[in-house]
Amino acid sequence: MNDVTVLILPDLQELLDKGDRDALRHALAEIHPADIADVIDNLEEAQAAALFEALSEKQRVRTYEHLEEDDQLRLLNALGRDKMIHIIEEMSSDDRADLIQALPERTADSILPLLAQAERNDVKRLVAYGDETAGAVMTTEYASLPADITVGEALLRLRRVAPDKETIYYVYITDADRHLLGYTTLRELVLARPDQNIMEARRQPLISMPVDSDQEEVARTIQRYDFLALPIVDADNRLVGIVTHDDVIDVIQEEATEDVQRMGAVEPLDIPYLKAGFWQLAWRRGLWLTILFLGGLFTDTALRHYESVLAGALSLVFFLPVIISAGGNCGSQSATLVIRSLALGELRLRDWYRIMYREIFMGLGLGALLGSIGYARAVLWGSPQIVAVAVGLTLVAMVMVGSLVGAMLPLAFKLCKLDPGVASSPFVASLVDVVGIIVYFNIARSLLSL
Amino acid sequence: MNDVTVLILPDLQELLDKGDRDALRHALAEIHPADIADVIDNLEEAQAAALFEALSEKQRVRTYEHLEEDDQLRLLNALGRDKMIHIIEEMSSDDRADLIQALPERTADSILPLLAQAERNDVKRLVAYGDETAGAVMTTEYASLPADITVGEALLRLRRVAPDKETIYYVYITDADRHLLGYTTLRELVLARPDQNIMEARRQPLISMPVDSDQEEVARTIQRYDFLALPIVDADNRLVGIVTHDDVIDVIQEEATEDVQRMGAVEPLDIPYLKAGFWQLAWRRGLWLTILFLGGLFTDTALRHYESVLAGALSLVFFLPVIISAGGNCGSQSATLVIRSLALGELRLRDWYRIMYREIFMGLGLGALLGSIGYARAVLWGSPQIVAVAVGLTLVAMVMVGSLVGAMLPLAFKLCKLDPGVASSPFVASLVDVVGIIVYFNIARSLLSL
Repeated sequence: MNDVTVLILPDLQELLDKGDRDALRHALAEIHPADIADVIDNLEEAQAAALFEALSEKQRVRTYEHLEEDDQLRLLNALGRDKMIHIIEEMSSDDRADLIQALPERTADSILPLLAQAERNDVKRLVAYGDETAGAVMTTEYASLPADITVGEALLRLRRVAPDKETIYYVYITDADRHLLGYTTLRELVLARPDQNIMEARRQPLISMPVDSDQEEVARTIQRYDFLALPIVDADNRLVGIVTHDDVIDVIQEEATEDVQRMGAVEPLDIPYLKAGFWQLAWRRGLWLTILFLGGLFTDTALRHYESVLAGALSLVFFLPVIISAGGNCGSQSATLVIRSLALGELRLRDWYRIMYREIFMGLGLGALLGSIGYARAVLWGSPQIVAVAVGLTLVAMVMVGSLVGAMLPLAFKLCKLDPGVASSPFVASLVDVVGIIVYFNIARSLLSL
Repeated sequence: MNDVTVLILPDLQELLDKGDRDALRHALAEIHPADIADVIDNLEEAQAAALFEALSEKQRVRTYEHLEEDDQLRLLNALGRDKMIHIIEEMSSDDRADLIQALPERTADSILPLLAQAERNDVKRLVAYGDETAGAVMTTEYASLPADITVGEALLRLRRVAPDKETIYYVYITDADRHLLGYTTLRELVLARPDQNIMEARRQPLISMPVDSDQEEVARTIQRYDFLALPIVDADNRLVGIVTHDDVIDVIQEEATEDVQRMGAVEPLDIPYLKAGFWQLAWRRGLWLTILFLGGLFTDTALRHYESVLAGALSLVFFLPVIISAGGNCGSQSATLVIRSLALGELRLRDWYRIMYREIFMGLGLGALLGSIGYARAVLWGSPQIVAVAVGLTLVAMVMVGSLVGAMLPLAFKLCKLDPGVASSPFVASLVDVVGIIVYFNIARSLLSL
């Protein structure tokens, strides 16, 4: 529940209980559709439907767009297809396509024929684009104008189409076959002389992206150039849609959440934590926990291998957990830095040698730091000299290995066209654990036999 | 280096080497300032300065705004204050304030007096706002109009001020003392009748935020309402600036990067990985590695405590690393989910009991899963029955504890007004490690003495 909702929910609930529709309508007129959507999310079905029906026509459309998928379904069931079909027709094209895709197939099949021809075709086209592509996030309600008109004529036409367009601040100039020729902004048009040709008021350079681009790259491009919207074109450079600034923010949030969750060894969850079902969450966590656990069992194998060394110097065990975790922590630092830089587009694969070079030295330096602390602690707490030396040397080696593996693994994943985010901290830590045991006991064995 | 830069850099370098200024100017006219900035980032000082001087006046300002701080400084040094002062005056107010703040104090002191009075005061005001607040990211170049004019008059005035404003798509209506009365959009104005009063074309509801709000909350508000810009007011509801959509994207990226880095136990780094100096990075990593290592040394203390149990059943050791890491992994999952949900505003502190309830059951379920696998493995590989039982039971307990600690610690941090992100995976893992050892050996000891 949002802060705003906490404030307004009790009052609205009281009006709903009293059934005072006029007062309710009056109160709702002052509330942003995004907030009304959050209120509906916190009401039971009957009250949610009553509140929705008290909204003005325009508010209903905007509110419905802001609702989460489960609430959209709930209202659709409560109010029925016939009441909702007009709302669905008026929704912006990207939200409408998302809704139809989220519906159970039977419901979608029963709704599609009720839509007007133009909207129906639009939905079918948008639904066909691959998940997480430009086509899946774009809207088809852009403003476009021909190249042979004046600025004055352009402004007149814009005013006419404004109510139906997602934005009129960016205007795309196309030929008769929708090939993208240029773009201008409402600001340029307002500033230009009315008798100028529209192409004289166009902005340079024209930047567009193909419809099958990854949504993350589209977001990065809009962020890079501070655009309000980016035109999306097909293989023949025909304008098929635009992606707007608000979609970009959602994409960036969504991708950051995915990255963070992968780093925490959770299979990405596309719904809020408290809304996720128990089993849904258990599956996403159990999967990775089990994989990591099975991988972690190799430490058991490794330790059994060194049973005799262990029996000879039991105090070697005392430092085992801290050595393992130091390697893992350092690996997780490197993995984090590299994964995030790749996500932000700051690093490219061909930078790999610079990263390797740097991580080796960083690992040696940090290893020397932790190695000295570890050695000092072992000596001060009365461990045998051999154990103290083994601890110190192993720490140097482990931190270096962790650093290198953590940095290189995400790059290797990227090279194999896998998501670098999967090569995240827990993954790296598990790998480094086994290496740690092998290094530690081999160093100890050599020292013991000296 | 960006993909675009890779393509255009060689050609531009060739033109620079030939000293062909006309061809250079011609080529640059087709390139977006953001891309020119990236090219400059990849040129040596002399070439960077030559390229910058070949730009048109307007391009220079936009390019300079897009440059990173180190490049801004480099150009300022190369070209001299006198050549740059005009560029600095023309920069948008937020970028200008950021620049002055990044300059060495002596340089800033020598530049400020050269700025025109209005710009100088503006810089001083903006620099005074706290880091990461609305005041620090807002721009003062907003379009505002009085309440007593018509829509037609408003459009005329907007056209006059358009060149100097960050955006004219959102227009703020204020009284003579700059109190915020309402807002409208260029789209509403274009659609309204020219003889209507501007207040009749205003949009509802009016949402603004105080100048000392956290930038993350400002970003969340703009994202929530899909605004192009959000008005920022002082304690008396006087309009002092606006935060625009492009700033929001940067804030969201920046905060996500901070969260990710904290989760990877790196003190947040506000510059790209490859640009960060070796010692700068070593410090940010070494600090946390040392803290985690010192914390981790408690595992040594704990293990020494159970030396006699260990000596009695050496095979207990084999499963120690995997038990510890299972608890840590599960804790890191819970911490990740809770930290991210807090960052997205999906969770509130008062949801704590729902989270606790859920994490206990989740932990028990996942613990039972891993416990069974661990028990089976121990039995199959010929560990004594007592060890196998201890492994199984400890895993159930550890995964549950990890789950609970991981979820509650970020909430506790938030309650104490600390950044929940600091209670991240490695931190949780270290805490859980010690608990794991205590639980494991106590279970084993009880079983051994049965």
